[in-house]
Formats: sequence, C-alpha cells, structure tokens
Amino acid sequence: MKSQKTILVVTIATLAAASSLAFAQFKKPEDAIKYRQSVYTVMANSFGKIGAVVKGETPYNKDEVAKNAAIVATLSALPWQAFGPGTEGGNALPVVWSDNAKFKSASEKMQLAIVNLNVAAQSGDQEAIKKAFGAAGQTCKNCHDDFKKK
Amino acid sequence: MKSQKTILVVTIATLAAASSLAFAQFKKPEDAIKYRQSVYTVMANSFGKIGAVVKGETPYNKDEVAKNAAIVATLSALPWQAFGPGTEGGNALPVVWSDNAKFKSASEKMQLAIVNLNVAAQSGDQEAIKKAFGAAGQTCKNCHDDFKKK
Repeated sequence: MKSQKTILVVTIATLAAASSLAFAQFKKPEDAIKYRQSVYTVMANSFGKIGAVVKGETPYNKDEVAKNAAIVATLSALPWQAFGPGTEGGNALPVVWSDNAKFKSASEKMQLAIVNLNVAAQSGDQEAIKKAFGAAGQTCKNCHDDFKKK
Repeated sequence: MKSQKTILVVTIATLAAASSLAFAQFKKPEDAIKYRQSVYTVMANSFGKIGAVVKGETPYNKDEVAKNAAIVATLSALPWQAFGPGTEGGNALPVVWSDNAKFKSASEKMQLAIVNLNVAAQSGDQEAIKKAFGAAGQTCKNCHDDFKKK
C-alpha cells in the first residue's frame, strides 16, 4: 500500500514528465523559438487582414473575414506549448518563465478574445467584428507590453 | 463600342491588378518569404506529430491526431498567396515562378492529400490515417524535390 508521500512523489514525477514531454517535441530550444515566432507571424497576417477591413482600408467581405478569423482562432492555441522550461530566449522576456502564471493568464485572455472575434466574424455582424477586433488587439498589446522585448 | 483589342488590354490589366493585389498584402518580398516559411514551420510541427504516431513513437490518441490534422489542413491553404510575382528567394527555386503552372499543380496535390489525411484523422481509422499520411508525405517530398533548395 502506497503512503501519501509516495503518491505525492509519483504525482510530481508524472507532472514533470508531462511537462518535459511538452518540450520534448522540440529537439532544441531554437526549434521552440522558431515555432512560436512562426505561429505569431502567420497569425498576425490574418489578424492584420481583418484589421484592414475594420480600418476601412479593405472592403468588407464576410467570407474573407470569417476565413481569417478561423485561421487566427486555430493558431491562437498553438504558441504556448513552445514556451516550456528551457526555451527561454527569442523575443520573449524572462518574466514569461519567472511569472508563468501571469503569462498563462494573459495567453488565456487572448485566446478568449479570439474566440469572441471568430464568433463575430462568422455571424457577419460588422459592429460586433469591430468591437471584438479591438478587444482582441488589446490582449495582443497587453501581452507584448509585459512579455515581449521592445 | 469596344474593340476586341481594347477588351484584351483591359482584361490583361485587370489580371495584373488582381495579381499585384495578392502580393500587395506583403510590404516587402522578405515579408512574403518569412510568411510562407512560417506556415511550413507550423505545418511541419503538426504533421510531424501525426508522423510520430504513424511510426509508433507516440501512442495513438484520436483527438490529438484529429486536432493536428485539422491544423495541417488549415495551414495547407496558406503559403501559396506568398509566392506572388516579385517574391522570389528564400528556399524556393526559380522554377516556382518560371513554371508556375507546375508549382500550382503540385500545391493542389498536396492540399488534396491533406484533405484526405484530415478525413481519415477525424474518422479515427488508424489504417486509413497511416495510408493518407504516407500519401501526404509523398506530396511534400515531390514538391520539395522540384521546388525547394537542397
């Protein structure tokens, strides 16, 4: 029969293994950095296309905006797996790792804002799109202010 | 009444405008190169995760494979817009532009193979996933052989 201590040790070991597994998909820290930066590059392109519509630089086309919002939504879930322990560097400030709970919270706010943008984009309600785009952009800015090198 | 020649000139001008519009989303050719390379980086990560399952290196998990196949499917539609006129360079060989019809055909074969992989992944049929993964990987290889620098 296992003692509570044994169970705790096993639990911690399992969590540590799961955590290193998340990192293990990248052979080198540079691969994780390249991956997360690539995600942001692709995401920013589609987000920017919606922005051009919101700013009136591009005519509104429901299908285009909906398509780009769906792309952003898919990508918004991806970069976080590439900020595991040992992947410090790139454009990320050390606080990503030293206050990881705050970073996680910021990442969740962004993902939620993108879900809202996607819902608005699929509905075709231009006022809702504009509002949701502004809110999503604010979460990008907040996270960059706190966690990205200037 | 417009002459046939006038109509032809207008048609060509319209096509040229549409083509430069596709490129216009990238301010500089380097932006297009960075974008398309980023798409491939993100796509390769998810494709590689399915590959690890197919090779038996990672245990099969239907949701994970389905999620990664959906990511690959979303991304497979994106890089082509970033191979417009004037965006030569990066890892792409000049033949992308000199025989663009061949490149387009190769890109369509890849996208179709990824659609098939996604269908198999959502179904959860492991034999179908294995087969579709192999076919999709072959379209990657074919395109790299012909259009990517060694």
